[in-house]
Amino acid sequence: MAKDKVKVGLLGFGTIGGGVAKVLLQNKDLIASRCSMPVELALVVDLAKEATVAKMESIGLPQNMYSSSVNDIIDNDDIDIMVELIGGVHPALEFITDALKKGKTVVTANKDLIASHGGELLQLASEHNTDLHFEASVAGGIPIIHTLKESLAANQIQEIMGILNGTTNYILTQMAEKGLDFSVCLQEAQKLGYAEANPTNDVEGFDAARKVAILASIAFNSRITDDQVYVEGITKISDRDIMYAKELGYVLKTVGIAKESESGIEARVHPMMIPTDHPLSSVNDVYNAVFVEGFPIGKTMFYGKGAGEFPTASAVVGDIIMATRDIHSNTRARIGCTCFEHKRIKPIGEAVCKYYIRLTVTDKPGVLAQITKILGEQEVSIATVLQACTFADGRAELVLVTHQVAEAHMRKAIDEIKALQCVSEIGNVIRVAGENDNLK
Amino acid sequence: MAKDKVKVGLLGFGTIGGGVAKVLLQNKDLIASRCSMPVELALVVDLAKEATVAKMESIGLPQNMYSSSVNDIIDNDDIDIMVELIGGVHPALEFITDALKKGKTVVTANKDLIASHGGELLQLASEHNTDLHFEASVAGGIPIIHTLKESLAANQIQEIMGILNGTTNYILTQMAEKGLDFSVCLQEAQKLGYAEANPTNDVEGFDAARKVAILASIAFNSRITDDQVYVEGITKISDRDIMYAKELGYVLKTVGIAKESESGIEARVHPMMIPTDHPLSSVNDVYNAVFVEGFPIGKTMFYGKGAGEFPTASAVVGDIIMATRDIHSNTRARIGCTCFEHKRIKPIGEAVCKYYIRLTVTDKPGVLAQITKILGEQEVSIATVLQACTFADGRAELVLVTHQVAEAHMRKAIDEIKALQCVSEIGNVIRVAGENDNLK
Repeated sequence: MAKDKVKVGLLGFGTIGGGVAKVLLQNKDLIASRCSMPVELALVVDLAKEATVAKMESIGLPQNMYSSSVNDIIDNDDIDIMVELIGGVHPALEFITDALKKGKTVVTANKDLIASHGGELLQLASEHNTDLHFEASVAGGIPIIHTLKESLAANQIQEIMGILNGTTNYILTQMAEKGLDFSVCLQEAQKLGYAEANPTNDVEGFDAARKVAILASIAFNSRITDDQVYVEGITKISDRDIMYAKELGYVLKTVGIAKESESGIEARVHPMMIPTDHPLSSVNDVYNAVFVEGFPIGKTMFYGKGAGEFPTASAVVGDIIMATRDIHSNTRARIGCTCFEHKRIKPIGEAVCKYYIRLTVTDKPGVLAQITKILGEQEVSIATVLQACTFADGRAELVLVTHQVAEAHMRKAIDEIKALQCVSEIGNVIRVAGENDNLK
Repeated sequence: MAKDKVKVGLLGFGTIGGGVAKVLLQNKDLIASRCSMPVELALVVDLAKEATVAKMESIGLPQNMYSSSVNDIIDNDDIDIMVELIGGVHPALEFITDALKKGKTVVTANKDLIASHGGELLQLASEHNTDLHFEASVAGGIPIIHTLKESLAANQIQEIMGILNGTTNYILTQMAEKGLDFSVCLQEAQKLGYAEANPTNDVEGFDAARKVAILASIAFNSRITDDQVYVEGITKISDRDIMYAKELGYVLKTVGIAKESESGIEARVHPMMIPTDHPLSSVNDVYNAVFVEGFPIGKTMFYGKGAGEFPTASAVVGDIIMATRDIHSNTRARIGCTCFEHKRIKPIGEAVCKYYIRLTVTDKPGVLAQITKILGEQEVSIATVLQACTFADGRAELVLVTHQVAEAHMRKAIDEIKALQCVSEIGNVIRVAGENDNLK
């Protein structure tokens, strides 16, 4: 019998869960028209009973819609779609597994889970002729997952480069605009609720790495998990690096990169200097952006808020609508897991970048010659030497920008430079976007 | 019986048709894997036999795949998808009508047709339980149609603002960068193949108007045809306007705007001054961008090449893949026409903008007072008066920027100002983006 409405069970009623409920209520008629059938929020499950019921009341949901048990969703044959918003790998994995086995469509915003167990869950969904949607797991409201899977499906994707973590981007934007150092900006971000009390996941790049794993898996049709993504955070970035970046015509951003070449896939997250005329350079504060290059599309970019109650709810409810339309037209598993290949993942040593090197040296003749000799031996050629400052103690700060070179060579050179007697400190080594990374 | 492949008939083998064929060939294996079944180009129909056969040969298509008759697609039950790339309203309308009546899925890049007859064709598709896809009709490779229909379907869209015509944007970019006037830049664009011999459709805004009609219809779920879109071209823009725009902190762009408020829908295309910190301001040359604002997504932007063989082929083949997946999962008409409302379209007089006014006046005391008196009577308040130049003949150029006001008031004021004896010429009146149009 054809269904006359679709029922949704919401698992997790934090910020995003509340946003999803509000959107389902506020845009109810619009959603029903667009889906050709009503979408009804049927049950809210969250262990924090008191807070949940209070929030439900405040947005006009009846108390009898609350349950503390996920089984009230999983075992309820009337509920078609389970929306998982509790986050983390366990017990979300177990709950989603059970729901998929029951043939329910699952919508999730859980990047940790998709980046680590996406393959097996998509496989399970397919075995049970149902769907797992996860648009909200990457870049909040920006519709990049579905766009890669559907609208851009004609493309052989060559590269995805994105600003995928709002916390990091907010901190770097503040450092650049106000000339403050990392710890001050981190505290400010924490005060504003942009950074968590324990900011490790964001500032060390782990959050962005999960998103890179998800994007790379879809773009290259080969499963990549988050532990295969090379990661470097922003904790070592100093205000000096940001100052020099500006002087050199760059903006410092943490980017997630997924790139394919004949020798395999690169998947990495690290700070990078981006030329000021690149569209990603003007993506500031908590905004995210994803730049995609492929054939035949060429270069394209998607921009929006990467987090927050409502942008994320846009993605979650978009997935619910997609699922509802599938249910309405009696279709399931229309697009399953697209990882039908097994491609090599390149180690970071094979990545090719330009590099910014900031180092403190004895201010004596011949120092630059010693450094450039080592670089030359490692096939690193220098594009720019910046006339940097001399300190009171007679030492000097030197800034170099290299041409493109394989990272393994660069690392070897840095090790040797570090050992030179005239070099007292390597301040930082930061990758620089190459000519090929530009949108023009 | 389940089909083991999908067959495509291509109608029109110009630039885009050739691109589509190349992409179907070059990305064949990838497309087959992503669709779970092969997509086969079965027939190419174009009246220009010699050129078509020559191009087919050059890309490796056998000569027996050519036909001069569209009926070889329409009447061939083996062909599942007709791709219409001949452009223009007639006879594309008749061909598509016939194909839909046969139950074929139709993919088209034809903005003229969709903007004028989209409603009836979508209705027809639905009656025959089939689909009409038209992603390529707006903004080339940028996947905005499908994104609005599917990924952003949870949103009440408030505004769409886009740079939708590459020709116009190229000319305006050149005028700004090189300080040249319109006619010189138009000739340059024609030389480069960015503008047609008869550039009217592009430079007068008709092309962008079609795109605005299509976007507005989807965004607001109410049919708007191209003749309902207010249009103003760029032929009256002078290098002086561009110079003053720069001085005032703006960039001059032609934008397409679709906006909804309680009193109805605005749909318009005209030059507009955009603040330099707005993301649309840095969209240069032949790039397009579409900015979307809605609830819950907030503000988001999509950026890419708006025309050309390959970007457009990305959209067309994306639609073919979507259709193939539907055929593979035995689904049709999953999302039909979404214009289920009939909303009022506001006349241009109700639009609310800030305005830039450039006028030539007698350089005498009291002139500004006369002008501001008229503006004041029409409730137009002035934000900026620019100290502009004095000519050798004693007349002076005056530039004003107003605060936001309804266009009807502005027009009345301009008529009265024009009649003042001290005013010898209204050089130009150009709309200016308001504070509400910003992405921050």
